[in-house]
Amino acid sequence: MDTRTGLPVVGMVGGGQLARMTHQAAIALGQSLRVLAASPDDGAALVAADVQYGDHSDLAALRTFAKGCDVVTFDHEHVPTEAVRELVSSGVSVYPGPDALVFAQDKRAMRQRLSALGAPVPRWRPISSAEDLRAFGDEVGWPVVAKAVRGGYDGRGVWMLAQGDPLPSGVELIAEERVALRRELAVQVARSPFGQVAAYPVVETVQREGICVEVLAPAPDLPSTLAVAAQQLAIDIATALDVVGMLAVELFEVDGGLVVNELAMRPHNSGHWTIEGARTSQFEQHLRAVLDYPMGETALTAPAVAMANVLGGPPGGIALDERLHHLFAADPGAKVHLYGKQLRPGRKVGHVTVLGDDMEAVRARAARAARWLQEGR
Amino acid sequence: MDTRTGLPVVGMVGGGQLARMTHQAAIALGQSLRVLAASPDDGAALVAADVQYGDHSDLAALRTFAKGCDVVTFDHEHVPTEAVRELVSSGVSVYPGPDALVFAQDKRAMRQRLSALGAPVPRWRPISSAEDLRAFGDEVGWPVVAKAVRGGYDGRGVWMLAQGDPLPSGVELIAEERVALRRELAVQVARSPFGQVAAYPVVETVQREGICVEVLAPAPDLPSTLAVAAQQLAIDIATALDVVGMLAVELFEVDGGLVVNELAMRPHNSGHWTIEGARTSQFEQHLRAVLDYPMGETALTAPAVAMANVLGGPPGGIALDERLHHLFAADPGAKVHLYGKQLRPGRKVGHVTVLGDDMEAVRARAARAARWLQEGR
Repeated sequence: MDTRTGLPVVGMVGGGQLARMTHQAAIALGQSLRVLAASPDDGAALVAADVQYGDHSDLAALRTFAKGCDVVTFDHEHVPTEAVRELVSSGVSVYPGPDALVFAQDKRAMRQRLSALGAPVPRWRPISSAEDLRAFGDEVGWPVVAKAVRGGYDGRGVWMLAQGDPLPSGVELIAEERVALRRELAVQVARSPFGQVAAYPVVETVQREGICVEVLAPAPDLPSTLAVAAQQLAIDIATALDVVGMLAVELFEVDGGLVVNELAMRPHNSGHWTIEGARTSQFEQHLRAVLDYPMGETALTAPAVAMANVLGGPPGGIALDERLHHLFAADPGAKVHLYGKQLRPGRKVGHVTVLGDDMEAVRARAARAARWLQEGR
Repeated sequence: MDTRTGLPVVGMVGGGQLARMTHQAAIALGQSLRVLAASPDDGAALVAADVQYGDHSDLAALRTFAKGCDVVTFDHEHVPTEAVRELVSSGVSVYPGPDALVFAQDKRAMRQRLSALGAPVPRWRPISSAEDLRAFGDEVGWPVVAKAVRGGYDGRGVWMLAQGDPLPSGVELIAEERVALRRELAVQVARSPFGQVAAYPVVETVQREGICVEVLAPAPDLPSTLAVAAQQLAIDIATALDVVGMLAVELFEVDGGLVVNELAMRPHNSGHWTIEGARTSQFEQHLRAVLDYPMGETALTAPAVAMANVLGGPPGGIALDERLHHLFAADPGAKVHLYGKQLRPGRKVGHVTVLGDDMEAVRARAARAARWLQEGR
């Protein structure tokens, strides 16, 4: 507890944009997020008052960081499960706990567990040799999707392999059938230690080269039966895995239903639209969940919400500050979130959210705003 | 400019809740607010990364603070006008500038200027003796309102004087007629150095013992002619006084129109509802204005928005953290903002905003939520 305010201290391991935006939500709740950052240039380190520096895989650094925190949570999945387990066994409240978190860290464990739960997953298999891969591909059809068991994100650690392609080396792999998908969806739920669960509306996520570029909330033209099924699936997974905090379930919409692609147990890019577009943002909700506060309302604040990620564009061009001027002149209603990062090509440096009555209109505005920020035109 | 991000640095003198909430808005714009605080316990000092400590009336401290800021602005009106003038003459961009700010600092200067502009003001007079007061009261009717020319806020520095009451001593005074008001209103505008002005919807403010306790947006049952007149009045004042940043015009609604009560040139309690209730919050808008960015959309995000201040209640009772639990359980849609302050009786320690379709319903919910936080029941 922070003795100056009488309110709890939440420590977040990792100082990226998720911690940065969680800090904004913490401020409203009377708190100040404690951040374990890697560098003073990290997005959250630039803006938070209570920052420690250390390696997220260093147990000693984690132990020091956890002192005085009412609860420790995560900006990313990269803290070793064993280190989380050590923290818990020394009495630290860590949410999500290691027995849940492992399913967001280890794709093989996630596939095994979801398969055991009867959740819809693609056909998949652990792969440790070219022979394993060939047998699997011959069975489910080529190409197949190979994934690093640990450490991939934003398209990294994922390979589309045709017959005869060599295995990526140096990483543990699983292979999955390539799903004939109509589109990608995502659904987020928050769950508290008490077991209360709150589900957000199902969204459509649009990817380009493995990176999420747009999120549309609610997912356009999604039959309500499928929307309810997706929310129920996420609730069931959160409950079965004893997740505490935000859970994002990335889904493929396929003929006849849904297939689970990935899990994330933290605020997630597919929920950035909730800052303005839902009555409770995913960042506030994550704090409420890990603190065992009752969950906030998840209703949409407008009929149509579109979020577009801002990626670093080609080098050169007008300065970011000048791009903001142009964007604000062109669209006074676009809500901009910048993460304090240098503009490196392809890097997520911010996002823009637009709300309105018509999805096509808000989607076009969000895309135009993101293009202005990333290309200056 | 912050060389790490390529974005501007705004310095805010004063570390209270207005700076705290402005920092939240700065984070979204890719910035980190630089704060000149008086104490590490100040609401903004608890949460911001870039805090300096010093006395806001100390020119040397102000000069040090201003170094590296693209623009300096204010959380309160207490910086001496002459110190602001010195900063400007040494090349610092300060918004609002001293020639505008003085009208938010000096009630006599404000009354003189508004009278000269033909804006509707109560009858008033500078008072320097009991004879001055008696003559004024006999002319406009008793009781009269005496106000300290400088330094008053939240009901302090204001006295209701009956015939024969002694003059408050030790302060320069003006006296004003007691206006027969129907209710109090407020209207906010933002103005940029370029001269762009954006007006927010007119709100009703409800005071108790001189302290604002509720704000209703838009002001219920306000004739549209009066709403437009109030917005035009605020735009005219902002333009005539060359205000840059947010301007709040506190108004009395009277038979036949409007009377200007007070001016504030900064984000203001009457605009806290804009965080969730308007497309652009007053805090983001203040930053956009002082940076000469184009203004953001000011439209309401729901038909009815109610804000209730949370004042420190009677000592004792359950802890604030427990009160939050109860409130969140009772009303998952209430949006809470706590300022990191100790609960001292009567002190503004936070606010709650509720949005919906029906003003009476959201007003009741906001009042109940504020009561929970201040009294724990």
